[in-house]
Amino acid sequence: MNRLELYRSLAIPNTTKILLIVMDGLGGLPQVPDGPTELEAAHTPHLDALAARSICGLSTPIAAGVTPGSGPGHVSLFGYDPLAYEVGRGVLEALGIGFELQRNDVAARGNFCTVDPESGHITDRRAGRIPTELGARLVQKLRAIQIPGIEIFVEPVKEYRFVLVLRGEDLYDGLTETDPQRTGVPPLPVEPTRPEAARTAALFNQWLAEARKLLADEHPANSCNLRGLAKIPDLPSLEELYGLRCGAIATYPMYRGIARLAGMDVLPTGDTIASEIETLREHWDDYDFYFFHVKKTDSMGEDGNFAGKVQVIEEFDGYLPAILDLEPDVILISGDHSTPALWKAHSWHELPVLLWSRYVRPDSVRLFGERPCMAGGLGHVRHVDLIPLALAHAGRLTKFGA
Amino acid sequence: MNRLELYRSLAIPNTTKILLIVMDGLGGLPQVPDGPTELEAAHTPHLDALAARSICGLSTPIAAGVTPGSGPGHVSLFGYDPLAYEVGRGVLEALGIGFELQRNDVAARGNFCTVDPESGHITDRRAGRIPTELGARLVQKLRAIQIPGIEIFVEPVKEYRFVLVLRGEDLYDGLTETDPQRTGVPPLPVEPTRPEAARTAALFNQWLAEARKLLADEHPANSCNLRGLAKIPDLPSLEELYGLRCGAIATYPMYRGIARLAGMDVLPTGDTIASEIETLREHWDDYDFYFFHVKKTDSMGEDGNFAGKVQVIEEFDGYLPAILDLEPDVILISGDHSTPALWKAHSWHELPVLLWSRYVRPDSVRLFGERPCMAGGLGHVRHVDLIPLALAHAGRLTKFGA
Repeated sequence: MNRLELYRSLAIPNTTKILLIVMDGLGGLPQVPDGPTELEAAHTPHLDALAARSICGLSTPIAAGVTPGSGPGHVSLFGYDPLAYEVGRGVLEALGIGFELQRNDVAARGNFCTVDPESGHITDRRAGRIPTELGARLVQKLRAIQIPGIEIFVEPVKEYRFVLVLRGEDLYDGLTETDPQRTGVPPLPVEPTRPEAARTAALFNQWLAEARKLLADEHPANSCNLRGLAKIPDLPSLEELYGLRCGAIATYPMYRGIARLAGMDVLPTGDTIASEIETLREHWDDYDFYFFHVKKTDSMGEDGNFAGKVQVIEEFDGYLPAILDLEPDVILISGDHSTPALWKAHSWHELPVLLWSRYVRPDSVRLFGERPCMAGGLGHVRHVDLIPLALAHAGRLTKFGA
Repeated sequence: MNRLELYRSLAIPNTTKILLIVMDGLGGLPQVPDGPTELEAAHTPHLDALAARSICGLSTPIAAGVTPGSGPGHVSLFGYDPLAYEVGRGVLEALGIGFELQRNDVAARGNFCTVDPESGHITDRRAGRIPTELGARLVQKLRAIQIPGIEIFVEPVKEYRFVLVLRGEDLYDGLTETDPQRTGVPPLPVEPTRPEAARTAALFNQWLAEARKLLADEHPANSCNLRGLAKIPDLPSLEELYGLRCGAIATYPMYRGIARLAGMDVLPTGDTIASEIETLREHWDDYDFYFFHVKKTDSMGEDGNFAGKVQVIEEFDGYLPAILDLEPDVILISGDHSTPALWKAHSWHELPVLLWSRYVRPDSVRLFGERPCMAGGLGHVRHVDLIPLALAHAGRLTKFGA
């Protein structure tokens, strides 16, 4: 019996409500030796008071030393083994622009690039990072390509990036990328890595041939590559697994998309934490489980903006009382991965995690921060174990064995 | 995807340098109740200052309660699953005398023993621990044995121990030992545990028959047994896995041999920590990764010499500033296993571990010792996860998933 089968077999319904709050990129590092992390520097009286009544710890998203992308970071937070359920780059890119992928679609991330017209060798893998407007015009041009028997979607993303989705019967993933990851060589063909994907590979190659004809006179984006050709992972929904009706509240399309992969209903909301709180309040009677996503902690970390990240954390802290007023039965607060301002990117560091319910065994942690969490009662846990812990504290897992 | 495949798929090159310092048998125990361990008793101002800027913890070499031999202890420190990559006793013995095993060699540890000439039953499994000089003379005698089609190496080790290596085409391991592990019974034949090893078993049995003829008139070593018949494990090198060019600095042949198994270049050095430091300095421009082995901590522990082990640790501490002057990007300090002077042997206890880089999340540990490390930010980790953590802190692992 694997993990998911175990938990599925133990799941029982009740009327409790679980709230998972994901502060994207929450984990940080001291900006100066011996200094505080972003979370430690932030003035967070409400998080600290909650931590004092909670059990805290540090959590590894994927495995020791592994830096998660947003896909795997959330997949594991939602309790799925991130190595068993990979989210391809094409899928993430499609989710990121709010494209509603269907189960049989194959999505690819497209990159406009520059090739030498004589040799066909790539001279710039990103076509000089063309402006977004130019990328959008080129996408418009590529929409003319038609292939009988399948539907084709081409969508602009940003600068040199676009999304290509093929929709139709009997499309398979298991396809190689065309970007050779270096210049001075020609693009590669899409090749099937398993026999049933042969036709899908041929369709992508046919599309590429026509796309390159249409782009030939453009400059500098006279060609394109496809990366991360993938279908959506076949995640059993949290409702299927645990009987949880789930609502997702996130300001960015990618996180709404990942939530949809796990079978969550995506609730319409605005651009701010305030509007997300409002959405949560409005829908508080509708679901058993809420995924509440705060994006800007990550953005500030990526920008190397320590003070900005501190400010986003403090802003969220200000809304915590409004959340507690809703009286969830279980609150879980963590992040999908660390994004220390010092590192300016996602990192491998563990995430501080806080679990509250009436039934937690409280520890000595009185401040919500990375160093205090090192001494937390949860110890060192893994992201995939957080949902099971939340379910247990919500009384939603029955006894194993007699 | 297994662990090594995951990390291999994420490895990216850069110019950072990682230094792994292994103080053999580092972990200890209080000699008296409530007393300090060897590491805690040692005056180590430099290790303590480094610990204060590092993240510390305790690490399990193999599994709970398992005492590692030197082979598995290092295999796991180098990031390989020690249960998947076993180093046979014969291989260890050959490495220990500096014998350069080739990929197709089968090595065995030989033990001279005494048998009753009438019954053929073993009366002393170690032939009264004959002196090393006598062992060497007998080995000389055994070198006369020739078997067409294969090369045979017989090398003395110490007292009643020797190494036998068969070299040739189509030799296989998967062979049983001849030592019945008790007296009063005859030696066992070498038997194949898989069909392809049948010929190799026959060759070993042929060698044994001739050896016993040559020894029949000797006393007390009138026979011999073979143990741990094995080939070298098929470890993918650290260069293959992570693109790390590795240099190994160790004063004892066995550790140089194990390093060679992982694809490291063995750097010539002297007998002392001082000479090892000099070697490290000389070769500092040549490699990405250095394995620096300190042997005497283990030897003192095995001798039950608490004060001696303390002294070796203090001696190493004195050289730490010279190491820091080289400005490695990542420093990892631990041991392959514990060897408490109180226990006078390898033990199963966790190892104190210290990880330093500019990007560690520091903890509250201010002294490098077993008890302080219990509260360290790494918590309880596993040896196999230490190299991945070092790689991450060196910026040598890219993001998993988009």
